[in-house]
Amino acid sequence: MKEILAIVRLNRMNQTKRALAEVGLPSITGRDALGRGKGLVDLHLLQGAERGYEEAISQLGQSQRLIPKRALLIVVPDTLVEKTVHTIVRVNRTGKPGDGMIFVLPCMNAWRVRTGEDGEEVLDDVV
Amino acid sequence: MKEILAIVRLNRMNQTKRALAEVGLPSITGRDALGRGKGLVDLHLLQGAERGYEEAISQLGQSQRLIPKRALLIVVPDTLVEKTVHTIVRVNRTGKPGDGMIFVLPCMNAWRVRTGEDGEEVLDDVV
Amino acid sequence: MKEILAIVRLNRMNQTKRALAEVGLPSITGRDALGRGKGLVDLHLLQGAERGYEEAISQLGQSQRLIPKRALLIVVPDTLVEKTVHTIVRVNRTGKPGDGMIFVLPCMNAWRVRTGEDGEEVLDDVV
Repeated sequence: MKEILAIVRLNRMNQTKRALAEVGLPSITGRDALGRGKGLVDLHLLQGAERGYEEAISQLGQSQRLIPKRALLIVVPDTLVEKTVHTIVRVNRTGKPGDGMIFVLPCMNAWRVRTGEDGEEVLDDVV
Repeated sequence: MKEILAIVRLNRMNQTKRALAEVGLPSITGRDALGRGKGLVDLHLLQGAERGYEEAISQLGQSQRLIPKRALLIVVPDTLVEKTVHTIVRVNRTGKPGDGMIFVLPCMNAWRVRTGEDGEEVLDDVV
Repeated sequence: MKEILAIVRLNRMNQTKRALAEVGLPSITGRDALGRGKGLVDLHLLQGAERGYEEAISQLGQSQRLIPKRALLIVVPDTLVEKTVHTIVRVNRTGKPGDGMIFVLPCMNAWRVRTGEDGEEVLDDVV
């Protein structure tokens, strides 16, 4: 099984979770994340924006990309990794910087707390 | 060593951390997570509830299970994985949907920032 | 590639992200985490502090170490793991308990949502 961690735009979370539910994949949402891309960053500006100064925030253009994000976590059997990644990309791809990233990590086992069972068969019950 | 990620009910966090401390396991708490199970979900209802509309929230029965959760992270030596999982299951198992999930991921190394040391011997100091 | 998860002091986040940016590493910040070390913990005191009772919080000495933290996530090629860990340790090491921890996990692949591309070459674009 694999852990899939997706960092996506705030305003795509509902659509993403709906799309995942439609293909049968339940997900866990981490509330907030703060992403930053690679673009040339004016560090003083960035720091000001992180502290919430409106002036700094308004000066941050798209090239600086300080972008609030949401993190979404899904654990799926190996056979569903491709479908999951494809679904997340499909819903979140605008073609503009800041669309987000998806990471796939190995996951060794999963337990359903309600029953104490473990293994792949508990993965359809990810609450 | 392994990373153990537990998604559990909000109102069990204190008991869970206390039980882990009692068996000698320090833990890190991620503040919030939002979990959703597999039950048949009325997506419009779910969306409304996520946006905070009281009416939608009140209509969400247990079968829809949109449940605020907390995420708890622990990194332990391989020899303590079973004990950790068992402790979390014991404290969080009510037998009702929404008890949560536990995932175990491989972790390659850990560093204690205070000293710069790495390896299994730093794992009793997880702050 | 590897996922590097660092749990560090709140007041070092800006410096840490700046130091990482200076060596060319973009990062993702998880908003909040709550860390707890190994010290002898008065559990009633801890519980009170977690619920926000000022009295309990003020009584928690350094030995109890209930410390708000931030979690920082970076995915880097294998060749940059050492540099990343070294940078985080350098910026966050005060020598006092509570400096934080760094964990390194295997990461199997990464996708840039904007283009749908995957592999190591997308890791310089972690938003």
